[in-house]
Amino acid sequence: MENNYCIIMAGGVGSRFWPYSRTARPKQFLDFLGTGRSLLQMTFDRFAGIVPTENIYIVSNQAYRDLILEQLPELRPEQVLLEPLRRNTAPCIAYAVYKIKARTDKANILVVPSDHLITKEETYRNVLRECFAFIANNDELLTLGMKPTRPETGYGYIQIGEGGGLLRKVKTFTEKPNLEMAKLFVDSGEFFWNSGMFLWNLDTIVKAFETHLPEIAATFAAGADYYNTPAEEHFIAEAYATCQNISIDYGVMEKATNVYVMMADFGWSDLGTWGSLYEISDKDPDGNATLHGRSLNYNCHDNLVVLPSGKIAVLQDLDNYLVAEEGNVLLVCKKDEEHKLRQYVTDVEMQFGKEFV
Amino acid sequence: MENNYCIIMAGGVGSRFWPYSRTARPKQFLDFLGTGRSLLQMTFDRFAGIVPTENIYIVSNQAYRDLILEQLPELRPEQVLLEPLRRNTAPCIAYAVYKIKARTDKANILVVPSDHLITKEETYRNVLRECFAFIANNDELLTLGMKPTRPETGYGYIQIGEGGGLLRKVKTFTEKPNLEMAKLFVDSGEFFWNSGMFLWNLDTIVKAFETHLPEIAATFAAGADYYNTPAEEHFIAEAYATCQNISIDYGVMEKATNVYVMMADFGWSDLGTWGSLYEISDKDPDGNATLHGRSLNYNCHDNLVVLPSGKIAVLQDLDNYLVAEEGNVLLVCKKDEEHKLRQYVTDVEMQFGKEFV
Repeated sequence: MENNYCIIMAGGVGSRFWPYSRTARPKQFLDFLGTGRSLLQMTFDRFAGIVPTENIYIVSNQAYRDLILEQLPELRPEQVLLEPLRRNTAPCIAYAVYKIKARTDKANILVVPSDHLITKEETYRNVLRECFAFIANNDELLTLGMKPTRPETGYGYIQIGEGGGLLRKVKTFTEKPNLEMAKLFVDSGEFFWNSGMFLWNLDTIVKAFETHLPEIAATFAAGADYYNTPAEEHFIAEAYATCQNISIDYGVMEKATNVYVMMADFGWSDLGTWGSLYEISDKDPDGNATLHGRSLNYNCHDNLVVLPSGKIAVLQDLDNYLVAEEGNVLLVCKKDEEHKLRQYVTDVEMQFGKEFV
Repeated sequence: MENNYCIIMAGGVGSRFWPYSRTARPKQFLDFLGTGRSLLQMTFDRFAGIVPTENIYIVSNQAYRDLILEQLPELRPEQVLLEPLRRNTAPCIAYAVYKIKARTDKANILVVPSDHLITKEETYRNVLRECFAFIANNDELLTLGMKPTRPETGYGYIQIGEGGGLLRKVKTFTEKPNLEMAKLFVDSGEFFWNSGMFLWNLDTIVKAFETHLPEIAATFAAGADYYNTPAEEHFIAEAYATCQNISIDYGVMEKATNVYVMMADFGWSDLGTWGSLYEISDKDPDGNATLHGRSLNYNCHDNLVVLPSGKIAVLQDLDNYLVAEEGNVLLVCKKDEEHKLRQYVTDVEMQFGKEFV
């Protein structure tokens, strides 16, 4: 276990949960389930006994440094990697990988997002233990494939190769399919959701960067003498100024030939939208879900209501609405038209100012 | 002017503006228009130059004593009359009248509710001056009749007698009419809304109590030696324990034969319901009114939105709704079904407790 490392990607700033999430407090820092722990904290908690605390790295943004150290006081400041710019997942992972390389030459590394939900935690932890054991002994790039439960068109899919067992060589990565294709994928039993969680050992991922993203490899390898020193911040500022904006999926995983997938089913949700939160929430017999606060519903159906805890709502004659209140904003809109949310947020910032977004 | 007195009735505890109004802070104490002054304060302000401040009495409830003195620091505590029980308007007025009688034998008295809105204040003040002049010289009971602007079925009406001018002998008081009748009333030009504002001189109202409500007259006359002394509170507690629960309209005005009405039109609203607040509010071209806070409305029509100031709402696909947020409560319900509100408030108290009502 002492060679196990984890890179938690926590730089997201999405507005898909506005007004609950805000620019100053994005999704990963929020206590979505009202458990007292944010998604980031829940992510961190899952690695107890699997990855030593001192081997956990958070990659995020300068703006969230204090929030991260406040939510995870177990971390030393040097475990929080601060990107000066957002450059997608490949540079984010390369930064952390080369920083780990400057500290050790033997590491088995797990990469995970900070803002996903996992309901079957023990299953998840067992899967991770198996995966760590695999990459400790195999120079493969391993990705976690989620058993699909619906023909979701918002995710990429991974097609598994032939063979037995849950660990398979990857046949193809696919982009987000249309609904017809997604249905075929799910029915086939050969396609799994790409969860954005990866494992590999240090040598393997470094070789993969050198092979498939040589510029990024060169950029971050050049920092070997600066990582974990006062010069790191300046070096990283310069590195990011010029480095490519590219995802690890597109830049590495889809190009490499040594990619494996672990098929798994541990109640995963990427919590991508209000709708996905509604899907996994407890509902009353009329299909209304109320989170954090409480509500009385009169002739209401299929609503998602999210209130500050301690607050109540009385609702009448609403079907299929999202009612979300947080801080200085109240949102009441159709739940199945949440693609409009981005426009609302833009309009609000234009009309009322930054303090509302 | 030094003989002019005013009795402001401020004991109401209605739930018709819940959740904006609360048991602990009823309508009269709220800054409805966002002007910085509550309805009670605005009522008080209207008498500047007409009634000396030391002649203004507020009749309310023990629970609101501190709130009243906080909102009206111009008053001495003995100007705030505290009813131990709610017993409708006749005892409320009798208490104040007999307390004034213990102080003076010459008073021209105006009685007004504390929770109504008046938009044409100068007209109102001119009407009051005329009315005071009339009752100073005539032993009549005078009521203010509001020129009706719609066939309102929620008010009582006053039918005027024959004659000229704006001051007429009252022919009849009527109960709340049905819609057909209300239309006839309005079209006739002979019927005026009963506003609940009265003027009379001390001798005349005392005689009216003695004639029409002799028990109440006897009860409060018996306190002559206790008013304005430390014994007043104890006396009043005993007086209220046994006294009748009856309105001044039913107990005095509808029975007396010396009743006059001043016809007037000064932008009066009793602000009886959320609907009446909507009627008098500024609206956008789609009929949406937003009070205190601000809102962005997408495909919304004819809504009333009441938010804490500084707060915004984003609303989509709502027609004819009331959206009201205050403190620990959010209410979203059909605006034209506000008669259901009382039930909601009862349900909320049962399910969630007193702190929400």
